[in-house]
Amino acid sequence: MATSNGPVLLAFWVSPVSQRVRITLAEKGIKYEYKEEDLFNKSELLLKSNPVHKKVPVLFHNGKTICDSLVIMEYIDEVWPDKVKILPSDPYQRAQARFWADFSNKVCECGHRLWQKKGEEQEAAKKEIIEMLKLIETELGDKKYFSGDVFGFIDIALAPFTSCIEEVTPKIVAWAKRCLQRESVAKSLSEPGKVYEFVCFLKKRFGFE
Amino acid sequence: MATSNGPVLLAFWVSPVSQRVRITLAEKGIKYEYKEEDLFNKSELLLKSNPVHKKVPVLFHNGKTICDSLVIMEYIDEVWPDKVKILPSDPYQRAQARFWADFSNKVCECGHRLWQKKGEEQEAAKKEIIEMLKLIETELGDKKYFSGDVFGFIDIALAPFTSCIEEVTPKIVAWAKRCLQRESVAKSLSEPGKVYEFVCFLKKRFGFE
Repeated sequence: MATSNGPVLLAFWVSPVSQRVRITLAEKGIKYEYKEEDLFNKSELLLKSNPVHKKVPVLFHNGKTICDSLVIMEYIDEVWPDKVKILPSDPYQRAQARFWADFSNKVCECGHRLWQKKGEEQEAAKKEIIEMLKLIETELGDKKYFSGDVFGFIDIALAPFTSCIEEVTPKIVAWAKRCLQRESVAKSLSEPGKVYEFVCFLKKRFGFE
Repeated sequence: MATSNGPVLLAFWVSPVSQRVRITLAEKGIKYEYKEEDLFNKSELLLKSNPVHKKVPVLFHNGKTICDSLVIMEYIDEVWPDKVKILPSDPYQRAQARFWADFSNKVCECGHRLWQKKGEEQEAAKKEIIEMLKLIETELGDKKYFSGDVFGFIDIALAPFTSCIEEVTPKIVAWAKRCLQRESVAKSLSEPGKVYEFVCFLKKRFGFE
């Protein structure tokens, strides 16, 4: 990776956290090289560049390696500040953005339990995720996007999870539709049908059904 | 809280994440009002100000409420930029600081499992935490602090966990001693004997032993 100075993204097509970085790069209009990782046979590149978590996404830029989707999003925002800003400039608004982005990671963890567990545990995860979505909906309120009229950090952190949004949260459903109208989101998210197929494949492969 | 413009910290004496914020405020030399929360009988103030997690620490400042220790630390660093900076200015170094601070949250979660579980699960958590500490030690290497010679974000995020450091990681033990020589850390951390007593009390109360 040291030979390239332009950004290179190591990611996996169905990974929501990878999609966050793709949306960020698209919003900023940054050209980059995309490398698809094989999560069933992890590459030496992934294991060497993210030895702590061994997970995508990983961004390579100027000979440096940056891991963890939210960390990468802030890095991109700081390195290309002349492009559209995804984090607001006010410290309190920035704190809010980081708080809800972190919360969206908890939604993601709960989503994993939803398809990896069965019976009562699955029901518990389902209830938990609905409660989480209700909290997120309260935060969204009647705003267009989470920070107001501007599409930003929280929207990007949450957008890849639009497929698990329940009808119990109509405002989030409306927000998800607005997000999907953005080219950056539409082009970065995987096709819902393909995601469903992939989850069914995973469930069979790992005996979760 | 809206009546006070100076910072007010709602915290709990033994909470490592609360201690992070106390160390940050001490490093910056910021005067604040300290409010002790009763975690066995959570106050209306806590439930109202952090309805999502219902957890300390919570910072009140200029009529605003900020939750989540790492988010509060960044907020403090941004609102009082003229004081010593806890995050480096270089985007890559900032990304590293955020990555390892997030990792320290995972150490914290594993630490919870360590004292809440028994038998095999406890042994698994112990092994996991040792592996985590080894990774952290590799990152520290022969540096004085995690970012080099300057005490900063990663040090503050990890310092409250110095009491669970194992002898298998001698470089971290040496780093912990350096941290404890700082007034900001020494005055913000709880006395180890009292923490031990409190953990024993919790284990009995919640039937974890």
